[in-house]
Amino acid sequence: MRVGAVWGAVGCRPPARSVASDTVDRPRSYTVVGVGAIGGVYGARLHAAGHDVRWVARSDASHLRTQGLVVTDADGRRHHTDLAVHGPGEESPPRSDVVLVCTKTTAGVAALVGALADDATIVVAMQNGLGVEAALAAAAPGATVLGAMCFICAQKVGPGEVAHLDYGTVTLGEHRPGGDAAGITPAVEAVAADLEGAGVPVVREPDLERGRWRKLVWNIPFNGLSVVLDAGTDDLVADTDARGLVETLMREVVAASVACGHGLGEEIVAKLLADTEAMTPYAPSMKLDHDAGRPMELAAIYDAPLAAARAAGTDMPATAALAAQLHFLDRRARC
Amino acid sequence: MRVGAVWGAVGCRPPARSVASDTVDRPRSYTVVGVGAIGGVYGARLHAAGHDVRWVARSDASHLRTQGLVVTDADGRRHHTDLAVHGPGEESPPRSDVVLVCTKTTAGVAALVGALADDATIVVAMQNGLGVEAALAAAAPGATVLGAMCFICAQKVGPGEVAHLDYGTVTLGEHRPGGDAAGITPAVEAVAADLEGAGVPVVREPDLERGRWRKLVWNIPFNGLSVVLDAGTDDLVADTDARGLVETLMREVVAASVACGHGLGEEIVAKLLADTEAMTPYAPSMKLDHDAGRPMELAAIYDAPLAAARAAGTDMPATAALAAQLHFLDRRARC
Repeated sequence: MRVGAVWGAVGCRPPARSVASDTVDRPRSYTVVGVGAIGGVYGARLHAAGHDVRWVARSDASHLRTQGLVVTDADGRRHHTDLAVHGPGEESPPRSDVVLVCTKTTAGVAALVGALADDATIVVAMQNGLGVEAALAAAAPGATVLGAMCFICAQKVGPGEVAHLDYGTVTLGEHRPGGDAAGITPAVEAVAADLEGAGVPVVREPDLERGRWRKLVWNIPFNGLSVVLDAGTDDLVADTDARGLVETLMREVVAASVACGHGLGEEIVAKLLADTEAMTPYAPSMKLDHDAGRPMELAAIYDAPLAAARAAGTDMPATAALAAQLHFLDRRARC
Repeated sequence: MRVGAVWGAVGCRPPARSVASDTVDRPRSYTVVGVGAIGGVYGARLHAAGHDVRWVARSDASHLRTQGLVVTDADGRRHHTDLAVHGPGEESPPRSDVVLVCTKTTAGVAALVGALADDATIVVAMQNGLGVEAALAAAAPGATVLGAMCFICAQKVGPGEVAHLDYGTVTLGEHRPGGDAAGITPAVEAVAADLEGAGVPVVREPDLERGRWRKLVWNIPFNGLSVVLDAGTDDLVADTDARGLVETLMREVVAASVACGHGLGEEIVAKLLADTEAMTPYAPSMKLDHDAGRPMELAAIYDAPLAAARAAGTDMPATAALAAQLHFLDRRARC
């Protein structure tokens, strides 16, 4: 398997041995719940690297079973066939070592994930935003729950077809009730090793909540403003007023992270602005969702951080204003 | 002249005698600078009521001279002909008792107004927003400067043609350097009497700045959000999140008015929301401007209040966020 520009200079390794079950000398098995852009890209990588991958799909189940999954990236088009696909109303997949929850939100699939998990399972919430692990942790109380933030530009372009346009790094951390820092745990190391073995760059995050706040520093301004102003990231950083508003929003998120005990430093604001200037112009997932008439992920990216900040005694007035605009647009788009 | 539903139950009176010049027993003369919706509606009323009205027009000068001015309202269509029109590069009108400045902003016409005014002139700034009198007062240092806020739904629909759709009340107050309250002055009474004589409802405002802040409590949320969210006033008050944001913005303006020494009471928020619910759905002038590709009045309606609040030590974070969005959209529309 060739690893190209999209993934940086990360080479492939042989599949790592099981850490989660720790009993047999075999690559860890994976269940991918939700075969959109995220599930498609990362599931296909693990599948190609030799992991036993089971796919839980909704609308595309029969297409995936008969036609397979196509992932296109900078290296070209790769067709993955003979997939173990589980559709709605069908038998659940066998127990896997790791369950990657790749649906847009975790709330609707918590019961399903609970049924797929036992005490030896690692459940990974692959969503953006805050509070996405809670429903999974409640539904799978014995499992180890990780959170993953994917810095990736990818989109589903048709049934069983995903375009992976740029980036791909995954930041992984382990969830603790109350949001305490877990450190870099064996479960984080295990999943990180598998992803790295499949050519995916991984950042290990000892404080998952801090990692989530860090991602929000980018997502809160750029997801929302790209929708409200119908603009690309490049337009927003190039305009003096939009850039000023991006900075204001970023500073509110940094202040909220401090109030919530997962304090980021102010220097992240200048760094993320510079990174965004250097990026290929980019339409955030929220803009893709809204433009396609799909609901936006407002609960995890806006409502939960606003509630957490409020509970910690901090206002995020510009963020609250943006969130209200987004709720208005989201509601109108679904009327 | 019949006065219909648009103007409420205000009857016509004979033209009042001159108060400004106070020497001859004749109706006060008026120069209307800028023949858009505002200048067209109010100038035509004064003209029809018997005042000597001179019109300073830019693009429409020759059309107005040859074809006249048509104003359509609930009473029908009224054609005003034989107008004294002064176009660009032509001789200025003779000195008038009152100069109504009806251009979108006052900054660009200050020198012209200065040339039209002497110590006996009443200059009336007919714009929305804060700080609109300063340029006129500087350019016409001997004149009496009033500020007028027009609560009107009207738009220019073609050369020399204005549609007056609803409302029309004018709130009048006298400007003082530094924004001190002037009380209800003879100049306010004089112009108020002329407007009332022409069938226009007038509110006399002893504290012009307070009146301007009061108007901003409505304009800041509804002008801006109607543009950013591409929504009518009815959509905004009907949606729980948009209405919440309207309230937040209104409360910021009320707090800023208090900090600036022209304190409004909190009760205005509920009153204006209720009034807006009762209104015919309405596209604010800023939305009409933006939709037509014209620049928006951001300096007076957003930048000046934000600067005044900042100088008084008060933040308006949601207002600042909205203003930044509007500047971005305004700049993009003119690229």
